[in-house]
Amino acid sequence: MSSKSTPLPLSRDSVVAAHKVVEGQIHRTPVLTSSSLSALLPSKNTLYFKAENLQKGGAFKFRGASYNLSCLAPEELAKGVCTHSSGNHAGALALAAKLRGVPCYVVMPNNSAQPKIDAVRAYGATITFCEPNAPARAATLASVQAQTGATFIPPYDAVNTILGQGTALLELIDQAPEPLAAVIAPVGGGGLLAGTALAADGTGIRVFGAEPVGADDCARGLEEGKRRENVDAQTIADGLRTPVGVLNFPIIQEKVEKVITVTDEEIIEAMRLMWERLKIVVEPSGAASFAAIRSPKFQELGIEGPVGIIISGGNTDLSKPLPWVRADH
Amino acid sequence: MSSKSTPLPLSRDSVVAAHKVVEGQIHRTPVLTSSSLSALLPSKNTLYFKAENLQKGGAFKFRGASYNLSCLAPEELAKGVCTHSSGNHAGALALAAKLRGVPCYVVMPNNSAQPKIDAVRAYGATITFCEPNAPARAATLASVQAQTGATFIPPYDAVNTILGQGTALLELIDQAPEPLAAVIAPVGGGGLLAGTALAADGTGIRVFGAEPVGADDCARGLEEGKRRENVDAQTIADGLRTPVGVLNFPIIQEKVEKVITVTDEEIIEAMRLMWERLKIVVEPSGAASFAAIRSPKFQELGIEGPVGIIISGGNTDLSKPLPWVRADH
Repeated sequence: MSSKSTPLPLSRDSVVAAHKVVEGQIHRTPVLTSSSLSALLPSKNTLYFKAENLQKGGAFKFRGASYNLSCLAPEELAKGVCTHSSGNHAGALALAAKLRGVPCYVVMPNNSAQPKIDAVRAYGATITFCEPNAPARAATLASVQAQTGATFIPPYDAVNTILGQGTALLELIDQAPEPLAAVIAPVGGGGLLAGTALAADGTGIRVFGAEPVGADDCARGLEEGKRRENVDAQTIADGLRTPVGVLNFPIIQEKVEKVITVTDEEIIEAMRLMWERLKIVVEPSGAASFAAIRSPKFQELGIEGPVGIIISGGNTDLSKPLPWVRADH
Repeated sequence: MSSKSTPLPLSRDSVVAAHKVVEGQIHRTPVLTSSSLSALLPSKNTLYFKAENLQKGGAFKFRGASYNLSCLAPEELAKGVCTHSSGNHAGALALAAKLRGVPCYVVMPNNSAQPKIDAVRAYGATITFCEPNAPARAATLASVQAQTGATFIPPYDAVNTILGQGTALLELIDQAPEPLAAVIAPVGGGGLLAGTALAADGTGIRVFGAEPVGADDCARGLEEGKRRENVDAQTIADGLRTPVGVLNFPIIQEKVEKVITVTDEEIIEAMRLMWERLKIVVEPSGAASFAAIRSPKFQELGIEGPVGIIISGGNTDLSKPLPWVRADH
């Protein structure tokens, strides 16, 4: 456990305090606009894209990782940090640890994508591979912790992770030249969406989530009034395949108006438009929010005014064909 | 001709004055950094990338187009503007004209790429196609001018175009947290490079150009002490295929220390690294500068300290396979 933890319930003030701690460590990522993307929407909302794909490590995850490290005591930092992840959290934690000169140990499934393995390794972390299932992962992580004394930094289901991720919206509110009517963020484990909801609390900004149809445990859990513990994830959005966390779900339940589900086809089309018009590299998970804004499920809400969109990340394998380019081109 | 023109010789003050006119019309594009890209350089220079691919219309060309329009008298604006271009200048002028509600006429070769035709059309310009050669282009433009009375806005060989393009470096100097030792910009017609050199004048910033080996008329002209009027362009960098302009060449000759040539292979590798690490979509022309910084020709100069890199644009055909992805993947 971290040596410093914010008491529950979490509030907007907790996110503001976290931002004061990490703002010198993170990129204040730019906010992008595109009149041509706004023009595509029936509702014509001005869109403010918070480009967390341009964050250090290529994703918002660096915020939570940095804040977690900032909350550790010197004797904890000396022993290092560890986590399990096959994705952006591993890279973010490895980079944040490297920048502080702190050891980092990552447990990755042995079927992880080579570019993700390469990224974690390039940041100097020690990787331990495990069989690709939850019990093997937990056992391997426990073994790494026992050997090293490293502190476990959870990818989403932890107070400091949630608070760190929420800082992106604080910046967006400050950077946008006009008040936002709504904001939308993707939901996998729910660190970003819960943090965003906390950061919006009391501002009048309506908060929405975006989730792939093929990993819709959060949307279903909200309908059923109970968190789903598992998800049989079938989606291109690899960052959103995890079930929503125990700490994250009740925050989302209380503060998020609706989680909008989108198909992989909608995600790929949104991704193509963002690459083409915003000129940025966005991973499928990072395009889910714009896909949701374009869908009738959002459009029928009749929201007027500016909408903030958190682009979660840009870590995609550029050695493979783009998902919208036919192989037989 | 434009109704308002800056007297020669051009100076840094002329660029500062142009920036005051256009700064409300253009995006102040973000400046990006990447410690991993700096780490790849033997010289380890901190790099500040001025992301003009995130400019309106996807390229720095919107600066020159906007400044040209700002210099026209109301009676000229009413008749509209025209140009010949198969690339970013056409799109930029069409967009700048659209935003002012001014007619725009573009002469394009009948073998232009469909996405560029679509972009110009989407911005509401009237396109006239011509045979893909210089005499046909000139005759068609003359005919369009005769019919419409529109003012010709040259893509690079004009005072107001050069001054507009130079405004990118003014912003970069202001945005970078430390003084730049050097700056590099690509050279095709030389609007951006001449403008950049003017903007650097008297600041102590050393100015370099980047040019494809397959369109190296500027580098050769500098060696020979005389502008080459033609170029047999063979390069992937479609924005850099034009010979350097009459007005542009002497400014570059006087104020640019060296034009560094790079192969298409070096451009493609630089492009891949920029997409992968900066998470932005950069066209081949926009990657030429980073390719030049990586080349031994720059590295052997022994320049220490921060280097500014102007990323010219991001308009690339995303329906085609990425140039570094083998077709047989």
